[in-house]
Amino acid sequence: MATDASRREPKYQRIANALKAEIRSGVLGAGSRIPGENDLMAQYGVARMTVRQALSVLQSEGLTEARKGVGVFVRTFQPLRRRGIQRLAREQWGTGRSVWDADLGDGRELVVDQVEVREGAAPESVARVLGLGVGERVWSRSRRFVLDGKPVLLSTSYLPASLVEGSVITQPDTGPGGIYARLAELGHRPVHFREEIRSRMPLPEEALKLSLPAGTPVMLVCRTAFAEEGRRPVEVNEMVLDAAAYVLEYDFDA
Amino acid sequence: MATDASRREPKYQRIANALKAEIRSGVLGAGSRIPGENDLMAQYGVARMTVRQALSVLQSEGLTEARKGVGVFVRTFQPLRRRGIQRLAREQWGTGRSVWDADLGDGRELVVDQVEVREGAAPESVARVLGLGVGERVWSRSRRFVLDGKPVLLSTSYLPASLVEGSVITQPDTGPGGIYARLAELGHRPVHFREEIRSRMPLPEEALKLSLPAGTPVMLVCRTAFAEEGRRPVEVNEMVLDAAAYVLEYDFDA
Repeated sequence: MATDASRREPKYQRIANALKAEIRSGVLGAGSRIPGENDLMAQYGVARMTVRQALSVLQSEGLTEARKGVGVFVRTFQPLRRRGIQRLAREQWGTGRSVWDADLGDGRELVVDQVEVREGAAPESVARVLGLGVGERVWSRSRRFVLDGKPVLLSTSYLPASLVEGSVITQPDTGPGGIYARLAELGHRPVHFREEIRSRMPLPEEALKLSLPAGTPVMLVCRTAFAEEGRRPVEVNEMVLDAAAYVLEYDFDA
Repeated sequence: MATDASRREPKYQRIANALKAEIRSGVLGAGSRIPGENDLMAQYGVARMTVRQALSVLQSEGLTEARKGVGVFVRTFQPLRRRGIQRLAREQWGTGRSVWDADLGDGRELVVDQVEVREGAAPESVARVLGLGVGERVWSRSRRFVLDGKPVLLSTSYLPASLVEGSVITQPDTGPGGIYARLAELGHRPVHFREEIRSRMPLPEEALKLSLPAGTPVMLVCRTAFAEEGRRPVEVNEMVLDAAAYVLEYDFDA
């Protein structure tokens, strides 16, 4: 296929694209082994370095993983599509659904396998966003989410203690609709959201908690929820995502 | 400051936070040198490994850069805040402003230093999104954007040749309001946008074009613009961003 586009592409990119097409079409199914370096060198008539560059493209896109001494395999799960705007629409949490449900299609399940709920002084950056003074108290809800057996998301939600003290938000299970439904019942219905997204290499403890293979960055999503009364910030949620596991999507009108 | 939060934090994180506070407050100004490892070990009473972890946090967040044999310095520019929704509001491009202007505050200027406009067969992934058949032609507009002397963004926009042939969109300079104003004049006013965001380590040629220091991931933003008539996709824009240079922001109502 000697189109203009393919003639411009470096060799390793063309090999990576060919392998990606085989993964997409299912010729190389989930869990199957990618041909070895020697086989790919012979097949495409290229040097070992070129093959390694092609394989590193697949790995950094999260399509494959290397198992030491065994080979390179097609990863057994596909990226999760997270729709930032639709998932926070009031119809979701207003009817008792949790916002995390909105992430998933076709029967895959995002499972919380670790929860820690505690009260403490607000970290400085959180206090600034929530408009709290030094030493003011917040409740924090830290959770780890697992998909297809792989941890993919760490989420810590901070809420002013003055707002949620004594409510079910301070319990591990917040009931149908989650904390946004409970905030609405307390008179602080979220009406506006801001999501800020960054990416960087993981801190050591993030790499550990998310079981990240080497060379996988994290995406950071910081969400602030604003309530009806004068756009008061009522929650800050700091999320750390396995970048290879997620596509974030935002859909909006001009 | 022995709050609950700080007691829970690992030592390297506390040192990183202290240095970040000094950068934020201007005690350590842009371009100034961070104290050396030995100084930080003495100051905080910690091992070299702990100091190195703290410094790697600053570097992976894009706040500092190491210069070989000289030391670690505060980076001379601050991340760019890109507001996904406001910047694509019709008021922006509808009045002759270019959408990229919306990225910037306080007199900083995003400059295009490389432009390449060409016609060719649509790459497979682009053809799929634009609903084109194999071999159908697109015009592509590839640009590199530089901020404060540092390349921060590679952007390649694809438009169906059948839509834009003969128009100024096929020229390097598209005039006031950019391609969206021109598409509107051609009867294909964009009314809806989808932005998809991923992150991974850069390909070799991306690292080169963006002058990325080692250990800096890229964010990929793929924007699709849909026109009035039946939500027809009229443009796909594939962007590669220096992750250390950008915060992406999306603001929306519940």
